[in-house]
Amino acid sequence: MTTIDRTTSGADLTNEEIFAAHEGGKLGVEVTAPLATPRDLSIAYTPGVAQVSRAIASDPALADRYTWTQRLVAVVSDGTAVLGLGDIGPRASLPVMEGKSALFKSFAGLDSIPLVLDTTDVDEIVETLVRLRPSFGAVNLEDISAPRCFELERRVSEALDCPVMHDDQHGTAVVVLAALRNAARVTGRELSSLRVVISGAGAAGVACAKILHTAGVGEITVLDSRGVIHAGRDGLTPIKQELAGFTNPRGTTGGPAEALRGADVFIGVSVGQVPEELVATMADGAIVFALSNPDPEIHPEVARRHAAVVATGRSDFPNQINNVLAFPGIFKGALDAGARAITDGMKVAAAEAIAAVAADDLSADHIVPSPLDPRVAPEVSAAVAKAARAEGVVRM
Amino acid sequence: MTTIDRTTSGADLTNEEIFAAHEGGKLGVEVTAPLATPRDLSIAYTPGVAQVSRAIASDPALADRYTWTQRLVAVVSDGTAVLGLGDIGPRASLPVMEGKSALFKSFAGLDSIPLVLDTTDVDEIVETLVRLRPSFGAVNLEDISAPRCFELERRVSEALDCPVMHDDQHGTAVVVLAALRNAARVTGRELSSLRVVISGAGAAGVACAKILHTAGVGEITVLDSRGVIHAGRDGLTPIKQELAGFTNPRGTTGGPAEALRGADVFIGVSVGQVPEELVATMADGAIVFALSNPDPEIHPEVARRHAAVVATGRSDFPNQINNVLAFPGIFKGALDAGARAITDGMKVAAAEAIAAVAADDLSADHIVPSPLDPRVAPEVSAAVAKAARAEGVVRM
Repeated sequence: MTTIDRTTSGADLTNEEIFAAHEGGKLGVEVTAPLATPRDLSIAYTPGVAQVSRAIASDPALADRYTWTQRLVAVVSDGTAVLGLGDIGPRASLPVMEGKSALFKSFAGLDSIPLVLDTTDVDEIVETLVRLRPSFGAVNLEDISAPRCFELERRVSEALDCPVMHDDQHGTAVVVLAALRNAARVTGRELSSLRVVISGAGAAGVACAKILHTAGVGEITVLDSRGVIHAGRDGLTPIKQELAGFTNPRGTTGGPAEALRGADVFIGVSVGQVPEELVATMADGAIVFALSNPDPEIHPEVARRHAAVVATGRSDFPNQINNVLAFPGIFKGALDAGARAITDGMKVAAAEAIAAVAADDLSADHIVPSPLDPRVAPEVSAAVAKAARAEGVVRM
Repeated sequence: MTTIDRTTSGADLTNEEIFAAHEGGKLGVEVTAPLATPRDLSIAYTPGVAQVSRAIASDPALADRYTWTQRLVAVVSDGTAVLGLGDIGPRASLPVMEGKSALFKSFAGLDSIPLVLDTTDVDEIVETLVRLRPSFGAVNLEDISAPRCFELERRVSEALDCPVMHDDQHGTAVVVLAALRNAARVTGRELSSLRVVISGAGAAGVACAKILHTAGVGEITVLDSRGVIHAGRDGLTPIKQELAGFTNPRGTTGGPAEALRGADVFIGVSVGQVPEELVATMADGAIVFALSNPDPEIHPEVARRHAAVVATGRSDFPNQINNVLAFPGIFKGALDAGARAITDGMKVAAAEAIAAVAADDLSADHIVPSPLDPRVAPEVSAAVAKAARAEGVVRM
């Protein structure tokens, strides 16, 4: 079965080596207290452990100190929007969640457990996480389909006094903001002066619109499969009504052609394509983030004919927008600070920290750090913890 | 805070060293696939992982092979019956569950995740585990109070097609059976000829009665706080009615004095004490398992005056009955075999395997192996897997 599938792998990976690497799963549990002698056993288990349990029973806050929860992220999915595969269910999503846990450990030293749920009912998912609350310190929601993901994230955040983030929304949005900050620098502009078009109103598109608005981007227009989102359009979902409230100040109607004409920035987080002719109508010094994977909305070399800065989600072109730049450090910082939530301010701080790491060596082909840059997670973590403390959203 | 608390620790452990060993918790997650290079990332995460997820979506059985679930035990508690501490809640139970996970790893190489639940409702616990089913391969229920534990174990076993065991019941019962098998050998008797008295009708007492009955012990009488359990007694709970159905064939009534007179075996799994005078009324060559911790029902040196074989739950006397001899190998064998359940036959096979390890060097002071004997878990695992296959309770 040594076949090469370039369409899905995007690299010279064989099925054989992929499946071999996943054999038996990608995670294990390690024991951090010694258990070699009867004495070790008496300390780590009975009778010694009773002292620790008794102490936590008297003062529940001690659980943060004497259990693994304050460095433990639950990676939670129902398998409804997995990578580009869609609704493949919880079992089939598990290799992705194990991979996510592997990234948490490798990039931020955080422990995490994949919890894949055999229900897609928002009430049931919230209820399940509320019951499991004493088992972990934070929740990374992952690969949950829109628009359920918006309600789910809001309700889980309200129900749990711990950091909660749907990474498909905010991980991507944070890195997009970081990249846009540096792209604006490279092209000599301010965020506040930019006219941005976002193509896609799913998890990532909505979150990008919100964080760019929070960060002060001047003008944002969002496109979905029916065209430009505006307040007068019929049948808007609640989340799109919300978008209509703070985007599209010119009241543009129509489709990609109307939206892109004269725009400074195109951010593609959909599966659609954008013709070269439309990119050619953008403003001088345009910025194009074509983030659809594995096929960008426009080939980066084509986009580069008309744009000053181009980024994609792929590792084989410059400027890879990858949310691994964000989530490990965001959760690490939030847990380190004892944060009760992940706020907009913490996300913006994460974006600034990512942008700052790339700023040393800024150019049109280097607006974000490499996903493997070991400086990123510690910088993001420190910035997020600082923001959490400054906002006062920490325990104690 | 360097104080020595001999009453609770049973050894010269200081609070200082106990708390230091539990600082930050006792578990971590390890990554078993390399993540050092962009190529590693492409294989273990996107885009490579999509191939594995797609394969599982087509054939869900492949989840056993390409995720960690088939070596992953969920250690589940609601914190209602933790060690000798009682109902201290899920947060305070977590250090014990982490310790349990550490034992699974150290003794059987199994990975496990503590899931402590902020509900004590049986319906809700069952429902939660059903929703989480795709996340793990087996369930170890732990420190859940009686009589809820009986219904909970039955219902979780019915609801999930995987190994499920409440260790406080069956882990203890399996080791008791192993010890009794060897104690009978040492004293030249058959299980079928023994008159056994069990003091305690909680989780361990009920399970001991059941496994001894299954293994062919001749006559079993169970005592609870109101005395001997017999079919004519008023107000028996459902589980005690069940006990009354297969125990106490003589129809004994009364209390410990009536039960112990002429009995061959005393098994204490309660918190009560047994006076020396009563032990003196047992048959010649009596066998006494005084398993209450930290204070045995009768001091082992006192019991030895009247009994040929004495065991306790403590490490500082001979013959320590510790369920760590059982549960790591039971779950390992069940998962290795792809078992859909843990049957009585698999439990008896585990007991036989434990007894066999000690049989090389059998004596009144060596009826069970040391809890740290590395031969035990592999022998138990092999015997349990063999029993599962022989019974046909395995998948495929």
